[in-house]
Amino acid sequence: MAHLSILGTGNMGQAIASVAAKGGHTVQLLGQDDVATPISGDIVVLAVPYPAVSTVISQRGAQLADKIVVDITNPLNFETFDSLVVPADGSAAAEIASALPHSRVLKAFNTTFAATLAAGTVGPLTTTVLIAGDDADAKSALAGIVTSGGLEVIDAGSLGRARELEALGFLQLTLAANEKISWTGGFGVNA
Amino acid sequence: MAHLSILGTGNMGQAIASVAAKGGHTVQLLGQDDVATPISGDIVVLAVPYPAVSTVISQRGAQLADKIVVDITNPLNFETFDSLVVPADGSAAAEIASALPHSRVLKAFNTTFAATLAAGTVGPLTTTVLIAGDDADAKSALAGIVTSGGLEVIDAGSLGRARELEALGFLQLTLAANEKISWTGGFGVNA
Repeated sequence: MAHLSILGTGNMGQAIASVAAKGGHTVQLLGQDDVATPISGDIVVLAVPYPAVSTVISQRGAQLADKIVVDITNPLNFETFDSLVVPADGSAAAEIASALPHSRVLKAFNTTFAATLAAGTVGPLTTTVLIAGDDADAKSALAGIVTSGGLEVIDAGSLGRARELEALGFLQLTLAANEKISWTGGFGVNA
Repeated sequence: MAHLSILGTGNMGQAIASVAAKGGHTVQLLGQDDVATPISGDIVVLAVPYPAVSTVISQRGAQLADKIVVDITNPLNFETFDSLVVPADGSAAAEIASALPHSRVLKAFNTTFAATLAAGTVGPLTTTVLIAGDDADAKSALAGIVTSGGLEVIDAGSLGRARELEALGFLQLTLAANEKISWTGGFGVNA
């Protein structure tokens, strides 16, 4: 069994916590008011909106060394809903990896809405979590938690693939915001 | 009923032709040897690999004026399978629209494998074609053909969204090439 720390108590943090709990893992769920509480997990999920990540890193960066850090963000321009705020040839995950050189950074959960994580399904399909990262052991550890929680996992490749995962997350958010898809649906994977 | 011209007789061209035929539309399917045959459709699908598009435009550009031109390409670096060959802030669709200023360019079909177009399903889901473009009437005309052929359609937004559709197509191709998903499966949409 693994022990996760999830920074962020919003719908995504709660949904990821529920997946881990279903798999029999223990979860430390930390909110903004818990900044003085040390992180106890070896796997840390940054379940905060992209604009809050830099604050979390400035507060918690030293504690994140040697840990697996999971970036779930979709770095949208939430004013226009028409672009990402990271460089076209970069990603939020790449920025986070650069800011945390002693952590093993993964991109995951940004292509699944909270509702499909919690339900375990996207319509008739089992929800699939796409994971990108450069450390095979870290990906395997996270994949084990996700599959034990009843979801499917696909290894999407190196952390460089976070760029495409963020494009997919962005696309899915724009479709939901424009009522082309439901917040309880979206992209599923038929492997 | 519409009349389509499809330039390219590969598996994607044939699959798109089959969708149109199921919907009761007529199709002119043109291969490389048919360069002297005039295009007869008002909607023209460029069903050739990305590297061949520039040749098609140089041969057929004048004939494509005033037509709806559908770009289905995924402009991968097929040597590395690790990047796209278009600028990070651009897309193949944007390049084609720039080269064909008198055509109404749409991006479509690049996020569906040929097998799922032909079958009409991605596993338990009806195959969904994502269409991006700046001309609402052109999108509506293509959407009508696709839905009459038994598939679902989602309007993904402006032609600028082609960038995200190409990222999604790229991701899907890398997953299939790495045997993470099947060429008969991939991303489906549960609206």
